[in-house]
Amino acid sequence: MIKIPEKAELLNTHTRIKSFIHNTPVISSTLINNIVGANLYFKCENFQKMGAFKIRGATNAIMQLSENQQQRGVVTHSSGNFAQALALAAQSLGVKSFIVMPHTAPKVKKDAVIGYGGTIIECEPTLEARENTAKKVEKKEGATFIHPSNNMHVILGQGTACSELLEEQPDLDYIFTPVGGGGLIGGTALSAHYLADHCKVVGGEPFEADDAYRSLQSGVIESNLSTNTIADGLKTQLGDQNFPIIQQYVEKIIRVTELEIVDAMRLIWERLKIVAEPSSAVAFAALLKEKSAYQNKKIGIIISGGNVDLSKLPFTSL
Amino acid sequence: MIKIPEKAELLNTHTRIKSFIHNTPVISSTLINNIVGANLYFKCENFQKMGAFKIRGATNAIMQLSENQQQRGVVTHSSGNFAQALALAAQSLGVKSFIVMPHTAPKVKKDAVIGYGGTIIECEPTLEARENTAKKVEKKEGATFIHPSNNMHVILGQGTACSELLEEQPDLDYIFTPVGGGGLIGGTALSAHYLADHCKVVGGEPFEADDAYRSLQSGVIESNLSTNTIADGLKTQLGDQNFPIIQQYVEKIIRVTELEIVDAMRLIWERLKIVAEPSSAVAFAALLKEKSAYQNKKIGIIISGGNVDLSKLPFTSL
Repeated sequence: MIKIPEKAELLNTHTRIKSFIHNTPVISSTLINNIVGANLYFKCENFQKMGAFKIRGATNAIMQLSENQQQRGVVTHSSGNFAQALALAAQSLGVKSFIVMPHTAPKVKKDAVIGYGGTIIECEPTLEARENTAKKVEKKEGATFIHPSNNMHVILGQGTACSELLEEQPDLDYIFTPVGGGGLIGGTALSAHYLADHCKVVGGEPFEADDAYRSLQSGVIESNLSTNTIADGLKTQLGDQNFPIIQQYVEKIIRVTELEIVDAMRLIWERLKIVAEPSSAVAFAALLKEKSAYQNKKIGIIISGGNVDLSKLPFTSL
Repeated sequence: MIKIPEKAELLNTHTRIKSFIHNTPVISSTLINNIVGANLYFKCENFQKMGAFKIRGATNAIMQLSENQQQRGVVTHSSGNFAQALALAAQSLGVKSFIVMPHTAPKVKKDAVIGYGGTIIECEPTLEARENTAKKVEKKEGATFIHPSNNMHVILGQGTACSELLEEQPDLDYIFTPVGGGGLIGGTALSAHYLADHCKVVGGEPFEADDAYRSLQSGVIESNLSTNTIADGLKTQLGDQNFPIIQQYVEKIIRVTELEIVDAMRLIWERLKIVAEPSSAVAFAALLKEKSAYQNKKIGIIISGGNVDLSKLPFTSL
């Protein structure tokens, strides 16, 4: 049985990591508000350090280690934003980081990790190889494994994006976030529960990776059999640390198609003039899909990150 | 002989239009600063109303008309940002606008003008047809013609982006802007001259449309024979209203290749996480090209706009 963190733990997390992260801007667009029929506030974590919210949780998790643990370093396996997040968070805290990545990972991602001072350990591109390699590093280096989403310190850290949004817009009716491994929506749900009066949390999830939606239906953690989605940050699996929080504090999860994700992403790029990842667009796509239920509400949307490969964009001629 | 506006006219312009425009954000990136070896401050006019600085000059030009003139409306010919700018500025001031556009202009641009309440008059896609059609509208409607860049009220309006930037960063050593018709760089040069202690203005211009560079060399206004550049906002021609200002107050103009423009644009998108037009990237490309001359300086860069066709981006695999 997981113990759901208390309000003080969330508040302490924010105080702890504040000076290591950006308080990112919140932006709005009259045109988008008119399209949706509601007042939207986009929390721009694409402007966060290393380009995504993940630095929040990574920073908190490392700071919660003992001095002895910090001296031996941290390890994770990721080919996405968490790899960069853990490397950068470790660097700014003076801690060693070991990042297990499949040897097939793009050079640009490896270069980013190296640029942030991380040590890359390559492995075969399977989940089994990743986990085994990470375990070997734990043993050999004495490093502490930090999971990208299924770790309560990570979840609390990710929740601080919502805390900042609520400081700026305290009377939100809803907050929409994308759902991947469950770290962001779990932390957001805690933050909305403890820091707002009546703010409900809604998740957006691709049909192609809808483990969280199905898990809420069945009451047990379901797996993704395939993950054929453009929202590459959302292919990961829900975990036993965040699922109970989601069950208790998330209002609902709305599933969206790949076309709906690309359309929402295009609207964000064209109207907000910001570079946002496909995963970021999933929350907005969910709201667009069911907008009739949210007329005249005040709604926050977490733009989760902005690390995209510009040579592989999904926009084609209309 | 053109009379160069005095400081009071610039200050009055800003006071006049302030409530009709956004004071856009200024952003920085540690990584970009490290690449350049200087401290850069990007003034983000891509977040301006209608997505570009042009609303500033359009608003000022309309507000300077007599009541009688305002009642008869305004007319311009443009298929670019100034078409939308004049339509939106006119709408928010309760004035009619007539926008002459070639019938070949993209539907998305026509729709934007209509969305802002402008009346489109179509013509053949030649400069002669545009000018003749605009003259006919002037005569028939009694509307006042507003040139997109060669109009002193427009030039003064465009200068207010630099005024805001200097309010936030008063001790800039340089400001870089793109050079198209000369409205933005002309206004910026006036603003830097009157409002800063020692701030020099540098222009970036594509080799493929280098009329301003050649005009500064020869001392007379030169024409572009061809304008084969991705920076479609910079194909326009320098004018007799802004050239004397540029001659007197612009330090130099640096020319850049198409590849340098795309590389600079990619860096802006990847690192600043913002959507900026190719024309916007030209000023930054100029600085990147000659960065050795600007080490450790404080440099402002005007990001002129963010209206791009996402289905026609220049980024390809590296």
